[in-house]
Amino acid sequence: MEFYCSKSDLVNAVSIVSKAVPSKTTMTILECILITVSNGKILLTSNDTEMGIETVLKGDIKDNGIIAIDAKLFSDVVRKLPDSIVHISSNQDYLLNISCDKAKFSIAGKNGNEFPYLEDVEKNDFITISQFTLKEIIRQTIFSIAQNENNKIMTGELFDIKGNKLRVISLDGHRISIRNIELRQEYPSLKVIIPGKTLIELSKILSGEIEKVVNIYFTDSNALFEFDNTIVITRLIEGEYFDVDKMISNEYSTKILIEKKELINCIDRATLLVRENDRKPVIISIGNDDLELKINSPIGAMDETINIEKEGADLMIGFNPRFLLDALRVIDDEKITIYFMNSKAPCYIKDEAHKYNYMVLPINFNTVN
Amino acid sequence: MEFYCSKSDLVNAVSIVSKAVPSKTTMTILECILITVSNGKILLTSNDTEMGIETVLKGDIKDNGIIAIDAKLFSDVVRKLPDSIVHISSNQDYLLNISCDKAKFSIAGKNGNEFPYLEDVEKNDFITISQFTLKEIIRQTIFSIAQNENNKIMTGELFDIKGNKLRVISLDGHRISIRNIELRQEYPSLKVIIPGKTLIELSKILSGEIEKVVNIYFTDSNALFEFDNTIVITRLIEGEYFDVDKMISNEYSTKILIEKKELINCIDRATLLVRENDRKPVIISIGNDDLELKINSPIGAMDETINIEKEGADLMIGFNPRFLLDALRVIDDEKITIYFMNSKAPCYIKDEAHKYNYMVLPINFNTVN
Repeated sequence: MEFYCSKSDLVNAVSIVSKAVPSKTTMTILECILITVSNGKILLTSNDTEMGIETVLKGDIKDNGIIAIDAKLFSDVVRKLPDSIVHISSNQDYLLNISCDKAKFSIAGKNGNEFPYLEDVEKNDFITISQFTLKEIIRQTIFSIAQNENNKIMTGELFDIKGNKLRVISLDGHRISIRNIELRQEYPSLKVIIPGKTLIELSKILSGEIEKVVNIYFTDSNALFEFDNTIVITRLIEGEYFDVDKMISNEYSTKILIEKKELINCIDRATLLVRENDRKPVIISIGNDDLELKINSPIGAMDETINIEKEGADLMIGFNPRFLLDALRVIDDEKITIYFMNSKAPCYIKDEAHKYNYMVLPINFNTVN
Repeated sequence: MEFYCSKSDLVNAVSIVSKAVPSKTTMTILECILITVSNGKILLTSNDTEMGIETVLKGDIKDNGIIAIDAKLFSDVVRKLPDSIVHISSNQDYLLNISCDKAKFSIAGKNGNEFPYLEDVEKNDFITISQFTLKEIIRQTIFSIAQNENNKIMTGELFDIKGNKLRVISLDGHRISIRNIELRQEYPSLKVIIPGKTLIELSKILSGEIEKVVNIYFTDSNALFEFDNTIVITRLIEGEYFDVDKMISNEYSTKILIEKKELINCIDRATLLVRENDRKPVIISIGNDDLELKINSPIGAMDETINIEKEGADLMIGFNPRFLLDALRVIDDEKITIYFMNSKAPCYIKDEAHKYNYMVLPINFNTVN
């Protein structure tokens, strides 16, 4: 194997595939990046058995070949090379030679043929979406997937396609995040659960440009994201997702309009008095023209009032401050509307245009205090 | 106690005194910041028994008083306050009330009279130095103090004043760092050993402006740094510092002139092949017009050549790459001169003007390899 490429292209390609290199694995070959030169292409591949990434590296090919090389070391080395043309070659002993200007490295690699192939995904059903939109929608929902694996389905996000609508949902038992976007055209109906981990890594690779698009192909068990020179393949989570429409309600007895930033800053201050893992709620009292937020903890006490516009009944209700903050921070609107039923029912932060709906369950502050 | 101050002044003052709040202590009162309002001044004080900081907070005093308040919590709270005027008051139960716009906090404090006083330092002998110079000289020497306390003297830096010269020295048994600066006037001769930890925290507080000065007062057992609205008091390390002049030599058999940046980048690349805690040296071979740097480790091999100007004999010598990097990174000159005697004697990186002299001991690469 032998080829030339620019240092910056190489750094970029290695950084992309590194996202699917597992940090812990019993299969040491997976700690490698696979370099394959064949059919006039230089391909870099990584695979953590749930997700795989393949990217095409621009370069000048001299000789075909295949080698697997430790991802961490290779990534460190290429990043520290001079900004110049890199010459990469390997021999039959799996020794990888990297030279750039006057610097020459030789690193022991592994037999590339031992590297597990990525799943072959048929490119039939697919949707097209802008990189910007996909990256945004992940950011706006990913925080409410479940962290532990007890319920596998909760560790993923539902991508629900109907006509020209895409609805993305995540939930963790305490809250539900829903984002709706309009696609550029109509597609056949489809529901898939994509692992949260894949979405997190994917959103790191997406450039997020509005003009650039991602094609997402689906099969029964896999999804393939195709963009720029890269494909990301992921297993889908099996099973039926929760019927979220039965879990949310549009009824309310109190509706408030409030400055998002004021509410964020106020809750943020209140959390200073909550030690981590302490289920201490913030208590919100809704009056006619203002919302009073109170917290009382062994560390100290805080209270603060914020002006609001209100419809309906007065209310006192307690929340885990982090759950409110997570949702508020991914909403772009400056003024937001929150709907309440009573102190034991969830609240909904949602907009008139149905772009988003964040449900948060309250905490019973009488028993907790 | 009652006063008003601006949020930004308060954040700044709390951030300054926080530098001397111990992270681990058996005296819980030391985890606090002491707020003292008396004699028309608002003073914030911290004390970790080796170092103490006192800063004056600008404000509008309503009532005198004294209280100690948990430093971490107080710092978190004041940083998250709205950008406005802060009203602080305390009552006889040591409850501290902080209010700012519509936000109101109450936090339990402690009896301020239990807080240990800072050492009283007589302001007789002192030198004046610009904040910029002091901050720079600390940065340029602090990396070679010893990390462990086996030899207490090595954990500090020697400040050696003679006439209008200040010489600052640190050493850790493998290397010596020396920086010389000219003071603006003559002072009586003085040698003190200042704890490295104090210098590290001090340099974080110094604004580093050239026009601003620091007065440093000395007694037998303490030093006091006075600048802006702040004083930092530190114990001195007792004992006689090493006679460094006897440890360094001006003789050499090989002298090279080299581009500093090229050498740094080259060593930096070589260290990729060294696992931490591995004493693997980089091997430097000095020829007529170039220096070849080589490393061979279980991970891989690297070699690279750099153009140099040389006087004297060819030489092959091994070094701990980190020790070279630490010194090279704090030198401002673009071209540097390195002096060697033989493969078992230290090298000296020093300038003609005697502003700096960095000695690094070699590693015997024959026995290590």
